[in-house]
Amino acid sequence: MKINGVPYRSVWVDPTDHRTVCIFDQTRLPFALEILHLSSSEQVAHAIITMQVRGAPLIGAVAAYGLSLALSSDPSDEAMEREASMLAATRPTAINLRWAIERMLQKLRPMNSQDRVEAAYKEAGLICDEDVAQNEAIGRHGLELLRNIKNRKKAEERINILTHCNAGWIATVDWGTALAPIYMAHDEGLDVHVWVDETRPRNQGAALTAWELGSHGVPHTVIVDNAGGHLMQHGQVDIVIVGTDRVTANGDVANKIGTYLKALAARDNDVPFWVALPSTTIDWRVQDGLKEIPIEERSPLEVTAVTGLTKGGQVETVRITPEHSSAANPAFDVTPARLVTGLITERGCCNASGTGLRSLFPATTGQ
Amino acid sequence: MKINGVPYRSVWVDPTDHRTVCIFDQTRLPFALEILHLSSSEQVAHAIITMQVRGAPLIGAVAAYGLSLALSSDPSDEAMEREASMLAATRPTAINLRWAIERMLQKLRPMNSQDRVEAAYKEAGLICDEDVAQNEAIGRHGLELLRNIKNRKKAEERINILTHCNAGWIATVDWGTALAPIYMAHDEGLDVHVWVDETRPRNQGAALTAWELGSHGVPHTVIVDNAGGHLMQHGQVDIVIVGTDRVTANGDVANKIGTYLKALAARDNDVPFWVALPSTTIDWRVQDGLKEIPIEERSPLEVTAVTGLTKGGQVETVRITPEHSSAANPAFDVTPARLVTGLITERGCCNASGTGLRSLFPATTGQ
Repeated sequence: MKINGVPYRSVWVDPTDHRTVCIFDQTRLPFALEILHLSSSEQVAHAIITMQVRGAPLIGAVAAYGLSLALSSDPSDEAMEREASMLAATRPTAINLRWAIERMLQKLRPMNSQDRVEAAYKEAGLICDEDVAQNEAIGRHGLELLRNIKNRKKAEERINILTHCNAGWIATVDWGTALAPIYMAHDEGLDVHVWVDETRPRNQGAALTAWELGSHGVPHTVIVDNAGGHLMQHGQVDIVIVGTDRVTANGDVANKIGTYLKALAARDNDVPFWVALPSTTIDWRVQDGLKEIPIEERSPLEVTAVTGLTKGGQVETVRITPEHSSAANPAFDVTPARLVTGLITERGCCNASGTGLRSLFPATTGQ
Repeated sequence: MKINGVPYRSVWVDPTDHRTVCIFDQTRLPFALEILHLSSSEQVAHAIITMQVRGAPLIGAVAAYGLSLALSSDPSDEAMEREASMLAATRPTAINLRWAIERMLQKLRPMNSQDRVEAAYKEAGLICDEDVAQNEAIGRHGLELLRNIKNRKKAEERINILTHCNAGWIATVDWGTALAPIYMAHDEGLDVHVWVDETRPRNQGAALTAWELGSHGVPHTVIVDNAGGHLMQHGQVDIVIVGTDRVTANGDVANKIGTYLKALAARDNDVPFWVALPSTTIDWRVQDGLKEIPIEERSPLEVTAVTGLTKGGQVETVRITPEHSSAANPAFDVTPARLVTGLITERGCCNASGTGLRSLFPATTGQ
């Protein structure tokens, strides 16, 4: 997508050396647009752990390049397996990370070590291209949902979409998952407006989704995470669309902490609640999301401190709690499939259930 | 309650001049404990509007003193009615404000103007004393709920209570509503632990509830508003207790934005959801909370900017959204009675229904 008219992806290989991996430092947005050049797998791991890159699909793509960088310095079996394990352990909840590493290893394990570097970069590039194509397909399928809403409205009424966290183009390689249909609807002239949950504690909504939508010219309003239920009670939300970090074979959805609360409110107010995902986000080995998906517990400092811009234009971090109060910070929650209206995948929409998923992905069910 | 061992109320008349009204500036907590001296009704109105005092019961008590201050400078009928209207309009959602002003007027209207000042201060003092007594009674009734939870637990298991916003002693004249049972349980040696919702956008949980509980020595953990549903899914919450700004005759509950989402999660996980209130918070004239209670829309700046303490010890406000993103800020929502397990009042506990309320307050039903 475009920033100030210039098209970008969220990750790319430096065209001057064909090795260095470039990303935006997402911890600096929306206050600074800064490109990081990563030249080792350690730097890639650091970027994932510190959330300079985040978003389930993007993490997978960047980790694939991380393995490529590792092989550039040591293409041996031992180094490859060690670095793959290291990269796979950087974040626990998103399944795309392990999917991408596993795909790389399946490709690279049978090869001679001298052939691995070029093949790794090529495979990582394919992962990126496929992610873009999948998200574009998700956008087209989700666009149908928005058109159907428009058809039930009066000419002057806008389509109000609520989203949580950031599942936009900078959470993927391009297009985004939850935001892809919104970009397409906006581009074809549908009057869309997005309620952007700020998404505490890291404020990915307030910082990233609002920045993305604003950069593309999509009308949006930032709200606190507490407000969505009230808006739904008063008919101000036509549809909720969120992304996800892992979907179980039964359709349970792990996503940013607080997603479950919005799904409950959507159900209570008959608002459709959709989840957009590439099939790489499905974990076919897991059935019960609540029992089986590990939930990352992050630093309490993300809760007790908030970073923003002072009036003087400085980025500053301030503590919002009393000095001696402790904090807890579970980063994700699981929305049971029963609360999900449906899933938007690159192959179309389906029910959030084993049957629904199998109808679109019959070959992969048994994995 | 006590701060560093010294007992305080949240509002008192300066003992040196018997006129000036003293409050804590709650916008400065938890970083500074600053006492404000209010000497006119304009200053009282300003303190309410800017939320230097907040909390439904406390607003009522302070407004009563505001009318007393107005009468000190002009005890005429005209001035009294004008200042009463002005004070009643400072906040729209909490009903205690209008209840307190109305009670003052009923007392003062029949009197000669020269007798009004003394009578006003006396009546405002009675409102305060009654609030303290009511909250103490709420605490005793709520304590029974916590004892019952303890009786079902193993000896080493703590009682986990989740609360939203601040309904503690500094939201009232003393004791608090939702926190009164918790203080009593803690004081009698029950092992209580409080999950404190930070309560965006103004962070009354992170700033005020955490400060109150910490000052009294009650174990607590601050969480983002997004986390409560996840904790309930995993059995980490035994009971939710919140305060309220207005309860309808049918038991619908207006409270800080986001309360409704916690009520939905409590219902979905069979966690009891209780609302603590003095009967002055009941609006007997209103039936349907969703349709009839006005919801205050506050400044978008409360959403886009966060105030806290820098590492250097300065209070600083930082913007967390992109410069051109707009924000919306509804301050309250309505939790339908069907989601409320029960109400804790000064006369005991009851169902959140017209029948429940009438069982405790038969004489006032027809108001």
